Amino acid sequence: MLMYDSAVSGNCYKVRLLCAQLGTPLERRELDVLDRSSRPELLGPLNPALRIPTVVLDDGRPLAESNAIMTYLAEGTRYLPEDRYERAQVLQWLFFEQYSHEPYIAVARMWAHFGIEVSDEQRAAKRARGEQALAAIERHLAECSFLVGGRYTIADIALYAYTHVAPEGGFALDPYPQIRDWLACVAAQPGHIPIDA
Amino acid sequence: MLMYDSAVSGNCYKVRLLCAQLGTPLERRELDVLDRSSRPELLGPLNPALRIPTVVLDDGRPLAESNAIMTYLAEGTRYLPEDRYERAQVLQWLFFEQYSHEPYIAVARMWAHFGIEVSDEQRAAKRARGEQALAAIERHLAECSFLVGGRYTIADIALYAYTHVAPEGGFALDPYPQIRDWLACVAAQPGHIPIDA
Repeated sequence: MLMYDSAVSGNCYKVRLLCAQLGTPLERRELDVLDRSSRPELLGPLNPALRIPTVVLDDGRPLAESNAIMTYLAEGTRYLPEDRYERAQVLQWLFFEQYSHEPYIAVARMWAHFGIEVSDEQRAAKRARGEQALAAIERHLAECSFLVGGRYTIADIALYAYTHVAPEGGFALDPYPQIRDWLACVAAQPGHIPIDA
Repeated sequence: MLMYDSAVSGNCYKVRLLCAQLGTPLERRELDVLDRSSRPELLGPLNPALRIPTVVLDDGRPLAESNAIMTYLAEGTRYLPEDRYERAQVLQWLFFEQYSHEPYIAVARMWAHFGIEVSDEQRAAKRARGEQALAAIERHLAECSFLVGGRYTIADIALYAYTHVAPEGGFALDPYPQIRDWLACVAAQPGHIPIDA
């Protein structure tokens, strides 16, 4: 499988981590996340949204959106429950991640990483919504060791990807002891690789 | 099934529309989308993100995120393909909707609906990203009558929900003839109900 990738992207890291744990070989093609001028040519025929990760399966068919790619790859494995309700709960967390978490936690990290200047108002808005997302995870983990069904799934991978590097965007994890315990559990799973692997 | 609902919300409309087409009875409980003070009490035990729609299934189990709820309800029906790759393509569009479409098209509509004042800069940013999302759909529909597999699925419901009311947020659909044809096809599906039903 070929993946249009970025070493710094947590969305791409989700797929790299799951593939490592599945033992699925991955050919990585690095794209720039700031200069997107080559994307219409490279990704246009594969993904109308022109985002990464975009993968090309071994049979040549393209697939995009990190959480859709993970769901596809995890089908029939221990990383995606078979039970219909538990699968829906996994999807609930995957959509939470893309709507309520990534746009704040990941974007704040990108601003820091690339030294992008933003207004105090923009920074405060990102911080407030990011803290809301972390608080929601913290409340949930108070009752559960993993996000769904008491065991490690792609929901944990999706939320781990940007949560474990949230401090790089200025989010302190000290107020979230459940999250810190859970991050340690995720990192201790067999076959785990770090984001810079 | 009970749903914490909002008449104005396109995310809630997705579930209402699918339920109408599935013939699934739905008990609706209207929540305010601006005054969210009652949400921790009402939704806290059901959905850590405190968003609507949140549903309570007939067996008492909660589920949240519009696109996760639709995927759960559509399982085993004509509205969600059985083929693994087509299911992944449906998910790709559902994640595209929540990440690249709803935050721009839906939020611009909410600003207009509730007369929320924003800066010219904020409005221009929403417009640019919203037009990008519409252009991505337009390019894809140039080759396909529906979003996935040549037939109506929950991917079409998800994107229809806010696209068909995009003009309420200031997005003209005249430059998107493929989108306008597709909207008409979606509205002509058996069992279709309008957003204000």
